[in-house]
Amino acid sequence: MATTAERDAMTRAIALAARGPRGVNPQVGTVILSADGATLAEGWHRGAGTPHAEVDALAKLAPGAARGATAVVTLEPCNHTGRTGPCAQALSEAGIARVVYALSDPGRDSGGGAERLRAAGVDVEAGEQSAAAEELIRDWLVAQRLGRPHVTVKWAQSLDGRAAADDGTSRWITGSPARADVHRRRAAADAIVVGTGTLLTDDPALTARDGEVLLPHQPIPVVVGARPIPADAAVLRHPHPVIAHADHDLDALLGDLRDRGIQRVFVEGGPTLASAFLAAGLADEVLAYIAPVLLGGSRLVLTDIGVGTIDAARRLVVEWLPLGDDLLAIARLTATAQEHEDHSEHEDLSEGEH
Amino acid sequence: MATTAERDAMTRAIALAARGPRGVNPQVGTVILSADGATLAEGWHRGAGTPHAEVDALAKLAPGAARGATAVVTLEPCNHTGRTGPCAQALSEAGIARVVYALSDPGRDSGGGAERLRAAGVDVEAGEQSAAAEELIRDWLVAQRLGRPHVTVKWAQSLDGRAAADDGTSRWITGSPARADVHRRRAAADAIVVGTGTLLTDDPALTARDGEVLLPHQPIPVVVGARPIPADAAVLRHPHPVIAHADHDLDALLGDLRDRGIQRVFVEGGPTLASAFLAAGLADEVLAYIAPVLLGGSRLVLTDIGVGTIDAARRLVVEWLPLGDDLLAIARLTATAQEHEDHSEHEDLSEGEH
Ligand SMILES: NC(=O)c1ccc[n+]([C@@H]2O[C@H](COP(=O)([O-])OP(=O)(O)OC[C@H]3O[C@@H](n4cnc5c(N)ncnc54)[C@H](OP(=O)(O)O)[C@@H]3O)[C@@H](O)[C@H]2O)c1
Ligand SMILES: NC(=O)c1ccc[n+]([C@@H]2O[C@H](COP(=O)([O-])OP(=O)(O)OC[C@H]3O[C@@H](n4cnc5c(N)ncnc54)[C@H](OP(=O)(O)O)[C@@H]3O)[C@@H](O)[C@H]2O)c1
Repeated sequence: MATTAERDAMTRAIALAARGPRGVNPQVGTVILSADGATLAEGWHRGAGTPHAEVDALAKLAPGAARGATAVVTLEPCNHTGRTGPCAQALSEAGIARVVYALSDPGRDSGGGAERLRAAGVDVEAGEQSAAAEELIRDWLVAQRLGRPHVTVKWAQSLDGRAAADDGTSRWITGSPARADVHRRRAAADAIVVGTGTLLTDDPALTARDGEVLLPHQPIPVVVGARPIPADAAVLRHPHPVIAHADHDLDALLGDLRDRGIQRVFVEGGPTLASAFLAAGLADEVLAYIAPVLLGGSRLVLTDIGVGTIDAARRLVVEWLPLGDDLLAIARLTATAQEHEDHSEHEDLSEGEH
Repeated sequence: MATTAERDAMTRAIALAARGPRGVNPQVGTVILSADGATLAEGWHRGAGTPHAEVDALAKLAPGAARGATAVVTLEPCNHTGRTGPCAQALSEAGIARVVYALSDPGRDSGGGAERLRAAGVDVEAGEQSAAAEELIRDWLVAQRLGRPHVTVKWAQSLDGRAAADDGTSRWITGSPARADVHRRRAAADAIVVGTGTLLTDDPALTARDGEVLLPHQPIPVVVGARPIPADAAVLRHPHPVIAHADHDLDALLGDLRDRGIQRVFVEGGPTLASAFLAAGLADEVLAYIAPVLLGGSRLVLTDIGVGTIDAARRLVVEWLPLGDDLLAIARLTATAQEHEDHSEHEDLSEGEH
């Protein structure tokens, strides 16, 4: 059981963690308490290449001052030597007697810190305020699990699945509540991706706005495709420099974005790029803003996504959300029957190996 | 003001009306009351070619027995000579002193009965229980207003507007609550229409069922298209004989159905026929059952509906209704901006003529 002082320290450590940047590394905070519960030092992680939160806090103490103290940390202390040494070792070598942490480290390399601490005779307590700590770094955890950023593919469509009328006009298929919703959701993403087709047709600004006003957080604009970005493109006036990817390799694209610390990607079209993400199985969520109109014609919101027969349909778990006259389908992608089978085959194989 | 006896008589007259068949003529009921409110006779209309309700009731009285009596009728007595003489005249000639009716007659030829009665010195009271009377013959009133049956176009689609996967498989896009809903709505229609494409691909029974059990009311099956119906087609085992229309003239089709007394038509596909109804402006309602799947590919739920640019989009007023995992869009078609303009031009013209 955590003491009252430890509980308060964890609340403080989570607030400290939030001062750090979203990025390749998780946001982590630490408070070091004396045996009688007084705060000795605080620390947080300021991003890749800087000291971990535990080391940041320890560095503020005179040598020997941590002996017998308790370290309260939002994430299990790491156990691997990267650009910094393992925190588990740093804590035990500093004489820390007890560690209270919120979340287990899901990393393959960094995990095992708790074990190492226990082996060194440190008292370890896990799970204190884990929900709040998890909430803070949820996107980072998802990206860890996926091995790439989380991908939301967004589009606006007529009821019958068209992105535009036959002559290409589409302003506006959806109403203003739907368009405002898009901007709010853009602001929650780290990057916003379009294909050169959309770039050259629509010349989008790729900013997150409330009316004409830029929202505080702006996603990084990303353009994919071989055709060059025109020198007068609106996206070149975006607050962040554009990331351009000339080739069509979406795995490589997402790997690059991950390495830049991007956790949430918002793919905003057009139909070719959206279909490519879906066909590659690289979409985690679809946001379809459905306008109450019928268009018919040739401008399809999706082209081919590699579904040949009904059993291979991309199944969705959908929440339907009215937005003015429009309807937003918030859809999580579930595995197809086929992928389920592939998956169980893998499981059979690995069981055979044991 | 209607008396208590007249109010009770109107309730009874509506119940009598409901005994008659849906068809070219409206369902109408009549009760004839003596001056002191006793029921002298009842009547109702049994369909085109048979006496109107008023005449049916009068025929049950001895000559002279209607003198000074009150006729309570669900619809304004008619004023035209069709297969039967005008009821307004029959009532006044029989010596009826007062007429209480629920609904005005919207017919161009048959209207004016109330005026004729008043001119003959009969006391006339309109509007008693008009809501209930209207409810009973709502579909007939709509068909009168449209000059053709009311048309509902129904389809099932993936979120991205596909009717089937690329190989044509589509069983089942939607779940069983959606399919049960389709059968309930089929049972409320007078006719169910498919193109030869759907007939030849799916061999549908075109019955309204609850599981395997036929529902009490069955819509009349209608097949449109030049290709012949195969001798072993399931639709030939339908409780009603099939109506086949070889040509593609949808106005002529609806005219024929109207002349057969059909008030509500349910168009169930496929994409070619649905698009033809929409392109011709002959759809009053669309029912789109949206399944939570993505399909992509070439099997579009609508082909071309004559919309070239976004301002010509077919605007809908949609009620979104969850059905299990699926979503039903119940959509009324509103006029396009273009049609609005056409309409106001007409108005200008007719004002100019005045
Ligand atoms: N309704 C909506 O929500 C919505 C949203 C956005 C756009 N739009 C409309 O969509 C239209 C543009 O459509 P679009 O499909 O051409 O746009 P797009 O998907 O933005 O761009 C397609 C282009 O992206 C490049 N590309 C990058 N990665 C690719 C990959 N993995 N696979 C295939 N191509 C890849 C290719 O260009 P390169 O040849 O340069 O390599 C390709 O031609 C515009 O009219 C726009 O208004 C609608
Ligand atoms: N998802 C759904 O809700 C749904 C519903 C029904 C069917 N389907 C699928 O749709 C596919 C069949 O598609 P379809 O489009 O061929 O079916 P369809 O619309 O039922 O039939 C089309 C045919 O109807 C005839 N036709 C009659 N009036 C016409 C007009 N005004 N304009 C044009 N054609 C007219 C033509 O045949 P003739 O050459 O014989 O004159 C035409 O080829 C099947 O795979 C079926 O499973 C899906």
